[in-house]
Amino acid sequence: MIALGGSTVDRSKWKRKSIVTLALTVLTSSQAILIVWSKRAGKYEYSVTTANFLVEALKCALSLAALTRIWRNEGVTEDNRLSTSWDEVSVYPIPAALYLIKNLLQYYIFAYVDAPGYQILKNFNIISTGVLYRIILKKKLSEIQWAAFILLCAGCTTAQLNSNSDRVLQTPFEGWLMAIFMALLSGFAGVYTEAIIKKRPSRNINVQNFWLYVFGMVFNAMAILVQDFDAVMNKGFFHGYSLITVLMILNHALSGLAVSMVMKYADNIVKVYSTSVAMLLTALTAVVSVFLFGFHLSLAFFLGSTVVSISVYLHSIGKLQR
Amino acid sequence: MIALGGSTVDRSKWKRKSIVTLALTVLTSSQAILIVWSKRAGKYEYSVTTANFLVEALKCALSLAALTRIWRNEGVTEDNRLSTSWDEVSVYPIPAALYLIKNLLQYYIFAYVDAPGYQILKNFNIISTGVLYRIILKKKLSEIQWAAFILLCAGCTTAQLNSNSDRVLQTPFEGWLMAIFMALLSGFAGVYTEAIIKKRPSRNINVQNFWLYVFGMVFNAMAILVQDFDAVMNKGFFHGYSLITVLMILNHALSGLAVSMVMKYADNIVKVYSTSVAMLLTALTAVVSVFLFGFHLSLAFFLGSTVVSISVYLHSIGKLQR
Repeated sequence: MIALGGSTVDRSKWKRKSIVTLALTVLTSSQAILIVWSKRAGKYEYSVTTANFLVEALKCALSLAALTRIWRNEGVTEDNRLSTSWDEVSVYPIPAALYLIKNLLQYYIFAYVDAPGYQILKNFNIISTGVLYRIILKKKLSEIQWAAFILLCAGCTTAQLNSNSDRVLQTPFEGWLMAIFMALLSGFAGVYTEAIIKKRPSRNINVQNFWLYVFGMVFNAMAILVQDFDAVMNKGFFHGYSLITVLMILNHALSGLAVSMVMKYADNIVKVYSTSVAMLLTALTAVVSVFLFGFHLSLAFFLGSTVVSISVYLHSIGKLQR
Repeated sequence: MIALGGSTVDRSKWKRKSIVTLALTVLTSSQAILIVWSKRAGKYEYSVTTANFLVEALKCALSLAALTRIWRNEGVTEDNRLSTSWDEVSVYPIPAALYLIKNLLQYYIFAYVDAPGYQILKNFNIISTGVLYRIILKKKLSEIQWAAFILLCAGCTTAQLNSNSDRVLQTPFEGWLMAIFMALLSGFAGVYTEAIIKKRPSRNINVQNFWLYVFGMVFNAMAILVQDFDAVMNKGFFHGYSLITVLMILNHALSGLAVSMVMKYADNIVKVYSTSVAMLLTALTAVVSVFLFGFHLSLAFFLGSTVVSISVYLHSIGKLQR
């Protein structure tokens, strides 16, 4: 991640990459804080599917707004025009469809595993992203980077350990299968999005985002119909929305845009590191905020953070030696 | 640890190094199993100081036995004669004295921390050995090897986590200080022993061991006088000894000899890795042996073992790239 005396182009690329990575880390951290805040404020009373739909719509609108500014400044070119070919657009629905399937499965996995257990099983995502990144994008990670990746997964899981964590080992076979399948789905969706975005490097990212999010809106509209049609019809689309719901939608939309940027200018590996570090930062913030009330940092969290930090270090070392 | 197309001498050195390392790992593993067995059999009724003394005496006797065989086969030479100069022998009491101080302190640290907590704090030994190895023996570890070493410490600690481990964080300041001081003492004793043994590479290891263990006997005799004089006088030297006590003494003596061999033909870093892996193997054996009774592998143990395995891998990778 260090620009070793490269050219000005290299350095400006590295700067852009750093900024989007930092933005993703900060947004993901604040996301978790909003979730904690919303839990304190009470149960979710709004329908999650409508919120997801609004997140996609907002991202779509923001991409369009950015595009209109670019059109005004640079004029419409081959790279930033919205109209597209069937060949280009045909792949855009795939990630949205995969995420929809994953979100629907999420309701069923809770029959086999509780919410804290699911948080732990979600760390499979790290490994599945690495494996699919290697297979689909055919980018090699060095041996040290693979070691770092396994450490990242082990470290994140260690940091989340508590006295009830061992229960997750009693997850029935169907639960394990679903968790692995969901990790593969979300890993595949992430890596596939990167492949789509990187396939046309000169294409403006806002156009690529616009099409991704249009299909996101379509598939989330389908989710509303499947899951919350009655609730929306009876209570209205915005039932249960509060200030915090609005902030969460805003945050998710901005994080989503940051993820796209990271995939355009960096890659899925950077994305995984960024969100993992964000997870630790959030937990640390939570600890600091309750420290005054006598809460103690758990040994497991300390050990997990150490392992994740070394993983980040090894990842950058591994890159330099390539 | 891999002999890359080296000469026959290199290969035979590597073979010797592997054998002593394996011996240390196996002996340390069985040590822990004996301790578990002895705990099941009931409380320690023998005095630990007399057992320690016998361990030193046995090592001394075994070194002498090895020497007499060598004298018979090769004759007495400059390298294997027992007589020594003041210059050579003057440093041998130092490790024995340091271990004595550490063992005496061990009784006082339990005022601040319980036994499972002390097991966790003992992992400081790993870091102190690495740091003192670097400072005293002036041998460099690569960046990756340092990272691997911190991972070894984090991984071993993670593997030992249980629902009560967080209590160790409430150890008072004096407890932390003593734990760090004890880690430095035992790290220093280990590294110093390596320095003594390696200072005269051609000197026969059995002569070096003989002198080390003579002073071990002297200092342990002092410990008997200080701590268990009354008990030994009233109940006798061998009071409370059982078959398992004898096996433990035998095992400790052989492990001690293996440690010496590792320091002669490998180093303290190999020693630390070997005993850490032994710790995991033991715990795994314990898990397998109670698996039939419905005991489950803890997630923490699994994660810690993963981190330790990667640490071992990184250590060897780091060596190859030097």
